[in-house]
Amino acid sequence: MKTPISRYPVPELKDVPEDLRNRMLAVQEKAGFIPNVFLVLAHRPDEFRAFFAYHDALMEKESGLTKAEREMIVVATSSANQCQYCVVAHGAILRVRAKNPLIADQVAANYRKADITPRQRAMLDFAMKASQQAEEVDDGDFEKLRAHGFSDEDAWDIAAVSAFFAMSNRLANFTGMRPNDEFYALGRAAPERK
Amino acid sequence: MKTPISRYPVPELKDVPEDLRNRMLAVQEKAGFIPNVFLVLAHRPDEFRAFFAYHDALMEKESGLTKAEREMIVVATSSANQCQYCVVAHGAILRVRAKNPLIADQVAANYRKADITPRQRAMLDFAMKASQQAEEVDDGDFEKLRAHGFSDEDAWDIAAVSAFFAMSNRLANFTGMRPNDEFYALGRAAPERK
Amino acid sequence: MKTPISRYPVPELKDVPEDLRNRMLAVQEKAGFIPNVFLVLAHRPDEFRAFFAYHDALMEKESGLTKAEREMIVVATSSANQCQYCVVAHGAILRVRAKNPLIADQVAANYRKADITPRQRAMLDFAMKASQQAEEVDDGDFEKLRAHGFSDEDAWDIAAVSAFFAMSNRLANFTGMRPNDEFYALGRAAPERK
Amino acid sequence: MKTPISRYPVPELKDVPEDLRNRMLAVQEKAGFIPNVFLVLAHRPDEFRAFFAYHDALMEKESGLTKAEREMIVVATSSANQCQYCVVAHGAILRVRAKNPLIADQVAANYRKADITPRQRAMLDFAMKASQQAEEVDDGDFEKLRAHGFSDEDAWDIAAVSAFFAMSNRLANFTGMRPNDEFYALGRAAPERK
Amino acid sequence: MKTPISRYPVPELKDVPEDLRNRMLAVQEKAGFIPNVFLVLAHRPDEFRAFFAYHDALMEKESGLTKAEREMIVVATSSANQCQYCVVAHGAILRVRAKNPLIADQVAANYRKADITPRQRAMLDFAMKASQQAEEVDDGDFEKLRAHGFSDEDAWDIAAVSAFFAMSNRLANFTGMRPNDEFYALGRAAPERK
Amino acid sequence: MKTPISRYPVPELKDVPEDLRNRMLAVQEKAGFIPNVFLVLAHRPDEFRAFFAYHDALMEKESGLTKAEREMIVVATSSANQCQYCVVAHGAILRVRAKNPLIADQVAANYRKADITPRQRAMLDFAMKASQQAEEVDDGDFEKLRAHGFSDEDAWDIAAVSAFFAMSNRLANFTGMRPNDEFYALGRAAPERK
Repeated sequence: MKTPISRYPVPELKDVPEDLRNRMLAVQEKAGFIPNVFLVLAHRPDEFRAFFAYHDALMEKESGLTKAEREMIVVATSSANQCQYCVVAHGAILRVRAKNPLIADQVAANYRKADITPRQRAMLDFAMKASQQAEEVDDGDFEKLRAHGFSDEDAWDIAAVSAFFAMSNRLANFTGMRPNDEFYALGRAAPERK
Repeated sequence: MKTPISRYPVPELKDVPEDLRNRMLAVQEKAGFIPNVFLVLAHRPDEFRAFFAYHDALMEKESGLTKAEREMIVVATSSANQCQYCVVAHGAILRVRAKNPLIADQVAANYRKADITPRQRAMLDFAMKASQQAEEVDDGDFEKLRAHGFSDEDAWDIAAVSAFFAMSNRLANFTGMRPNDEFYALGRAAPERK
Repeated sequence: MKTPISRYPVPELKDVPEDLRNRMLAVQEKAGFIPNVFLVLAHRPDEFRAFFAYHDALMEKESGLTKAEREMIVVATSSANQCQYCVVAHGAILRVRAKNPLIADQVAANYRKADITPRQRAMLDFAMKASQQAEEVDDGDFEKLRAHGFSDEDAWDIAAVSAFFAMSNRLANFTGMRPNDEFYALGRAAPERK
Repeated sequence: MKTPISRYPVPELKDVPEDLRNRMLAVQEKAGFIPNVFLVLAHRPDEFRAFFAYHDALMEKESGLTKAEREMIVVATSSANQCQYCVVAHGAILRVRAKNPLIADQVAANYRKADITPRQRAMLDFAMKASQQAEEVDDGDFEKLRAHGFSDEDAWDIAAVSAFFAMSNRLANFTGMRPNDEFYALGRAAPERK
Repeated sequence: MKTPISRYPVPELKDVPEDLRNRMLAVQEKAGFIPNVFLVLAHRPDEFRAFFAYHDALMEKESGLTKAEREMIVVATSSANQCQYCVVAHGAILRVRAKNPLIADQVAANYRKADITPRQRAMLDFAMKASQQAEEVDDGDFEKLRAHGFSDEDAWDIAAVSAFFAMSNRLANFTGMRPNDEFYALGRAAPERK
Repeated sequence: MKTPISRYPVPELKDVPEDLRNRMLAVQEKAGFIPNVFLVLAHRPDEFRAFFAYHDALMEKESGLTKAEREMIVVATSSANQCQYCVVAHGAILRVRAKNPLIADQVAANYRKADITPRQRAMLDFAMKASQQAEEVDDGDFEKLRAHGFSDEDAWDIAAVSAFFAMSNRLANFTGMRPNDEFYALGRAAPERK
């Protein structure tokens, strides 16, 4: 019953262009496995390159948002879009980055009930509007963010992460991208209290 | 930032009617902790009694559905209703009953992509229709179930579980019922292969 | 063209467990007929018992809401869920309890236009949110109720009735439960003015 | 608590243009009262004239649909649009025309469960699609009607009644048009069997 | 691949009742062509007459709204209803009446981003609510209009235009009414600045 | 009343990194003006680079879809997302590429009524599902494409364009990206017949 990792052919690592292979090996070294998104998108090297360049430009940059907060946006919006890959994979990353084994499942199920700060709640409200009703985003939404100390550049970061994963969710859904089994258990242990 | 387990007063075990307390202690003995749904509903003993009588009549009965399958229905429909308590708590029970550490997150994120049989897919399609568009359920839906070997009594079981959790999801959402921290990690270890 | 009262077998009164039969005979004595919900659910005695225990715990209890107000909640939310049985049967009960031959049709068609008090309007707004978007219920909703003099226990009553009928509506819809012909005309005569 | 019959000024019969008054008096003579739609729209005589000319062109014409069937369309689509005036007033007319005291409440609550013929069901499915998703009406919808013996002219009648009441429902909703109390009880008595 | 102008027979001008033909010839003289809505509705002369009588009663009357503003309402609501005929034909009329070659495409794509005044924005918000959720129109909506200087009679004009095109959009969609090719280019040239 | 081209600061051409400037000048030379999407995204050079790399990887590549067909996908999905920038700008490009002055407005208003081939209709149905309900895309959708001669690689192209513009639409909406006035009139003249 186990579904394949993609509806499309998945290239072998040896057949992949060198720059893609190097990126994949680097991730493997760090994480212990190659997340399937790399293998699935390697079917289209040019799109692979653009996808990860975009990803890094948003997720690795300096920002008024922590990396964990950006992962919260990914998990909340991907859950609304029913993207299994992104909820599972980025849920794992969120647990790791936030050092919180509960947060990903809370945000995925109903972010309004998660153990987050009011500022993070405002961040997710904005991210969800950008994800689900971007056509109605207006000045009032930016005001609400400012009331929580977000700059307009932070607002761009929030909405751009939301928009990028609007794309990613659709890619994962039409390719039938399967999350690696490893993601499910990652970051589940409570961090040690000192 | 941690939210309380209920928007309403939560009685102490000693102040709870004896039949409720006995049930709660029995669960505690078996599970190691008292799931918050017991504590939250104990605020209203009559409703507590009816709720669990109904729950048991559906979830503990003999059925053409396994207990794990019934939990799949709970997780899929509760996710559609954004019920954090039910997704987290019944996700744990599903992992345990199915002896599958991946299944709950798969079903919660997008049941159409889960590692399930075509028969289980048909079961969840019916459960979701009963949950989200019951007004359109018709003969054609029963035909589809029969094509997968479900009897009409099985159909009742599927739809009744879906309907009962349509109620539970709303109870959990308006009371702000918080899942116990213990649920998140339950059943996450892969079962040993023999 | 007349549809049957259930998609499932309907037991004869003589074949029904005694406690069920007694309840049904008591209702018949009072109302003059046995509402079909009793006959349909008698196919599953355990579920019948739990269903009516729950029903009574909510609809017969002491409450800050009158019985007529609780029926308003049933009619408004059941209409949103397109549950023919509940709209027709509880519409009749609402007319009788409110001594108002117009109120049920008004509430079913568009509760925002019914001849109700602002307090009842607030009650129905909350009930509808609990019925249709329970995942978004938050502190602000409770504040609005308090502004109309509802306690938090009243809020529970409102939302719990709404949640119970979220279940009932789905049961009625998948079983194809047919309202008794008697309900349609009940309570239609204007009460005598003294 | 009784709401007024319109949010707008309602002219006195003596102040209304003669052609409008004559129409209103004719209806009064036949029905025993003047339905509020006449009084509310009399605030705008030109719109009144066009409205009823259109109404009569659709509802009084020769057609492959009976008058009762056309009223079914009105009730089903007006219920979907939550138009209290049209559900109550045309529900009464439907009961009278169909000589059936149950049909209006059945169709309003969930037309899929009403005591109607398969042909009438197909008629209402088409009417509802024209009412709620006209942008998706296509050849396949016409085929389904033909399979039940409807001509393409009948299809026009169905969709045009649906479209006209899409307008009427909105007029009634923004003017706050109140149904006359008389409508609620009309046609409720079972017709005598001979 | 070119679709016909109607799913129904289109009469020749010579076979059309004289009053219809006269109206059509008058439009042709003014516009240079006969808009297809006249040809399509001429299949049903009585409905043609009522339709245009209603149209003129709303679109040609004295009003607190300019004719261009009324066309804005048509374009915004018809776009929400995906009515190709009305968006294209009334988009052309809007460009001409507003002497603005950009406005129609802006309003059709997302009226919230169009180059319009705050007063016009309030007008379109109300028109859209009357078009899409008329059942929720209430006093608060009228207040918002008054804050922009609209009288309650203006509110009627806005909502009645919206309601009339709720009907027209459905007529155009089920008949498969095709916009004349001439409409697309009308009013596209920037007006001369003096 | 004219809205600015972005809610964010727009850099001057001289202040933009050289590779961005070169791209913008190249477009200007070809089109006669710099489309605002370049100016708006230049506020974030890294995102600019990734965005256009992705765009080119999808829109400039060899494909079983013509460039005009890819623009159809952009216009249809962007209209569903109410993205004014993309509907107007890519509508212009579609008219030019298809040498058809009517096609863009047809597709934007209701692609089901556009003058397109059955194959293109299937393409747009798939693109719209990937845009609006990607979570439900399944084998059946790929079958429908194959029936029209599309390969699975074509399916990727369709869905990936749809996904990329799901992102672009959100970027344009939250930045308030304004289409250049030049786009509205582009490609409106009918191509000469030889």
